[in-house]
Amino acid sequence: MNFKVKNDTFLRALLRQPTDYTPLWMMRQAGRYLPEYCATRKRAGSFLNLCKSPDMATEVTLQPLDRFPLDAAILFSDILTVPDAMGLGLYFSEGEGPKFERPLTTEAAIKALRVPDIGKDLKYVTDAVSQIRKSLDGRVPLIGFTGSPWTLSCYMVEGGSSDDYAKVKTLMYKEPKLMHHILSVTADAVTEYLNAQIEAGAQAVMIFDSWGGALSHAAYHEFSLPYMQRIVQGLKREHDGVKIPSIVFTKGGGLWIESIADIGCDAVGLDWTMDIGVARQKVGHKVALQGNLDPAVLFSTPEVIHNEVEKILSSYGYGSGHVFNLGHGISQFTNPDNAAALVQAVHELSKKYH
Amino acid sequence: MNFKVKNDTFLRALLRQPTDYTPLWMMRQAGRYLPEYCATRKRAGSFLNLCKSPDMATEVTLQPLDRFPLDAAILFSDILTVPDAMGLGLYFSEGEGPKFERPLTTEAAIKALRVPDIGKDLKYVTDAVSQIRKSLDGRVPLIGFTGSPWTLSCYMVEGGSSDDYAKVKTLMYKEPKLMHHILSVTADAVTEYLNAQIEAGAQAVMIFDSWGGALSHAAYHEFSLPYMQRIVQGLKREHDGVKIPSIVFTKGGGLWIESIADIGCDAVGLDWTMDIGVARQKVGHKVALQGNLDPAVLFSTPEVIHNEVEKILSSYGYGSGHVFNLGHGISQFTNPDNAAALVQAVHELSKKYH
Repeated sequence: MNFKVKNDTFLRALLRQPTDYTPLWMMRQAGRYLPEYCATRKRAGSFLNLCKSPDMATEVTLQPLDRFPLDAAILFSDILTVPDAMGLGLYFSEGEGPKFERPLTTEAAIKALRVPDIGKDLKYVTDAVSQIRKSLDGRVPLIGFTGSPWTLSCYMVEGGSSDDYAKVKTLMYKEPKLMHHILSVTADAVTEYLNAQIEAGAQAVMIFDSWGGALSHAAYHEFSLPYMQRIVQGLKREHDGVKIPSIVFTKGGGLWIESIADIGCDAVGLDWTMDIGVARQKVGHKVALQGNLDPAVLFSTPEVIHNEVEKILSSYGYGSGHVFNLGHGISQFTNPDNAAALVQAVHELSKKYH
Repeated sequence: MNFKVKNDTFLRALLRQPTDYTPLWMMRQAGRYLPEYCATRKRAGSFLNLCKSPDMATEVTLQPLDRFPLDAAILFSDILTVPDAMGLGLYFSEGEGPKFERPLTTEAAIKALRVPDIGKDLKYVTDAVSQIRKSLDGRVPLIGFTGSPWTLSCYMVEGGSSDDYAKVKTLMYKEPKLMHHILSVTADAVTEYLNAQIEAGAQAVMIFDSWGGALSHAAYHEFSLPYMQRIVQGLKREHDGVKIPSIVFTKGGGLWIESIADIGCDAVGLDWTMDIGVARQKVGHKVALQGNLDPAVLFSTPEVIHNEVEKILSSYGYGSGHVFNLGHGISQFTNPDNAAALVQAVHELSKKYH
C-alpha cells in the first residue's frame, strides 16, 4: 500500500507489515520539556489559545520533529475540546489542570447533552490537522486523537481532575442509565470528531482512555470498552484510498488486553506495567502493540536508556507489529538530550530485530 | 487448629480451611468515615499522637467492631512509623499528607540508614498490639501490618507523597545499588517489626505495597517483590503454637499475581481492577485471595452494594480461601450505614457458597 508519506514505518508497523526498524514517537512529544514549546506557549498567552490557533498548533506539533527523527507527528490539541464544544466551558486554572465551568451535576444537564456541531465548533481542530499535514509535507504520518468516552465523562462529571472519581463513580453505580446516556452521546460526538480529523488529513487515530484503569473489571467492560468499540466500528477505515489504522490505549488496562484487542482496533497501547513480550503472546496475532517505556527512565542517563530500550525490544522479539513509545506522556522535567538518546537507541538497537 | 479466638473464620479462610461464610474486614475500617473516630482523633490533637498512644490506638481499633460484625480487627497505626524510627522525622502537614523532615536526598544519608531499635523506638506499636489483643478478648483475630520496602522507600526518598515518583525512580534507574541498599535495610527493619508485632499478639500480618503498581514489570520484580519475599521468609510462621498467616497486597499488581503468589505468603490482596474469579483460576490452588470491591460502590445504595457483593462472591465461586475486603481503603466520605449494608450483604450472601 502506498501511504503517501516518505517514512511510512509507523503505519506499516501498526498494520504488522515488515519494516526495517521499530518506529517510535513519544506521547506528549510536543510539550513543556522543550524550551521552544515553552516559548510558543508563552506567546500564545494560554494553553487554550495554543490549542485553538491552527498556526501555533502546527508550530508546536512540528517542533519535536525538527529536533528528533521521530516516525510520527501527533496533532497538538487537548482531549477536552469535545466536552468544551458540548458547552461545558473548558478553562485552565494555574497549577490545577483543566476545569469545566458547567460540569454535569444534574439530571437535566445530562439529558440536555448533545453531539456538538463538529464542523463549526471544532473547526479549529480540523483546520490545525489540515495545516499540520501540509507543513509535514509527507515526512511522517500525522496521528489524530480523542479521549475515550469514559475518560471524557470523568472530567465532565467531576468538573476537573480527580484522585478518587467519587462523583462519576457515584453516578455510575447509582444511576447507570444516566451514565450510559453521557457515554453514548460522547461516543457519537467522538466518532464524528475522529472522522472529521481523518477527512482533514489524519493518517492514524488514537483513543486515549487515561482513566479506564480506575474501573473495576466489570465496570470497565460495561462503561468504557463498549464505547471505544462503538467508536472504532464507526471510524472511516480508509481515506483517499489509504487505510487509517486505529490505536486504543487504556492506561492501567494490561489485565484487559485480550478484550481490548477484540474490539477491532489495529493496535493496543500499553503502559509500562505490562511486559510487552507477554502482551505479544496474548494478542500479537491480532493487533500491533505500542509502548512501553516508563517515562521515568528518561530521568537517567543515555547508558541506562540504552539498556532499558534493549530490554523492551528483546522482550517484544523479532518482526513487525511494535511501535515504540513511552508508557505515558513524557514528563516536563525530562532533559531533551535524553529524549534524543531514546530515539537513537530505538532506531539503532531495533534493526537487528527486523 | 485452635486459633484461640471465638470467631476464627478470617484465619481459616486465609489458610483455605472450610468456613461457614466468607469473612470480611475493610481496609482503613478505623477511619474518618466514623464520627467516633473523628472524635478520638480530635482529642488526640494530631494523627501522630493517635498512633503513638496505645490507649487511643486501642480505642479506635475497636470502634468499627462495636458498630459492625467484622471478622477481623487491624492494628491502628501508620506504615511510616518504621522510617520515622529510622530517624527521618515523620510529620503530617494539614491537607498534604505525610512528610519527612529528613528525606533520603544524599548518598551519605542512604549509607547511614540503619535498622532501628524496634523494641525501644517502636515500643508504642507493640504496646498497642498487646493492649488491643487484650481488649479484643478473643472476639476476632488481630491483624498486624507494615508497608512494603518499595512503598516505604518511595516516601523516604520523595519526602512525602508523589504523583510521578520522579526522585525515587531517578535513584532506582541511575543508582540501583543505592536503591537496593535502602530496600535491604528497610526489609530487615520491617521483618523485625512484624515479628515484634507477632510476639506482641498479632494473629495475622499484612504487607501493604501501595506503590508497587507504579513500577514497570521488570522493576517490580527487581525492586519490590524480592524484598517482600525476604520479609515473608523471615517471618515467624507460628507463635504460641498457632500459625500466623501472611497477606501481601500490591495495589495495581494484578498483572503480577502469579509471581506474588509464589513468594510464600498465605494470601494475596487484590484491588478492584482484577476479576477475582480469574485470579482464583491463576493462583487459587496456592493462596487465599483478599478483596476486591471498589470502595466507590459504598457511595451508592444498599441495593447496589448487595448486587456488587453478589457479583464478587459468585465470581470467586464455591469454597473457602476468600476474605472479602475493599480493593483499597474505605473513603472518608462513606456513609457508615452503607458499610453496615456491605457487612450484612457479605455475611448473608456468602453462606450459599460454603
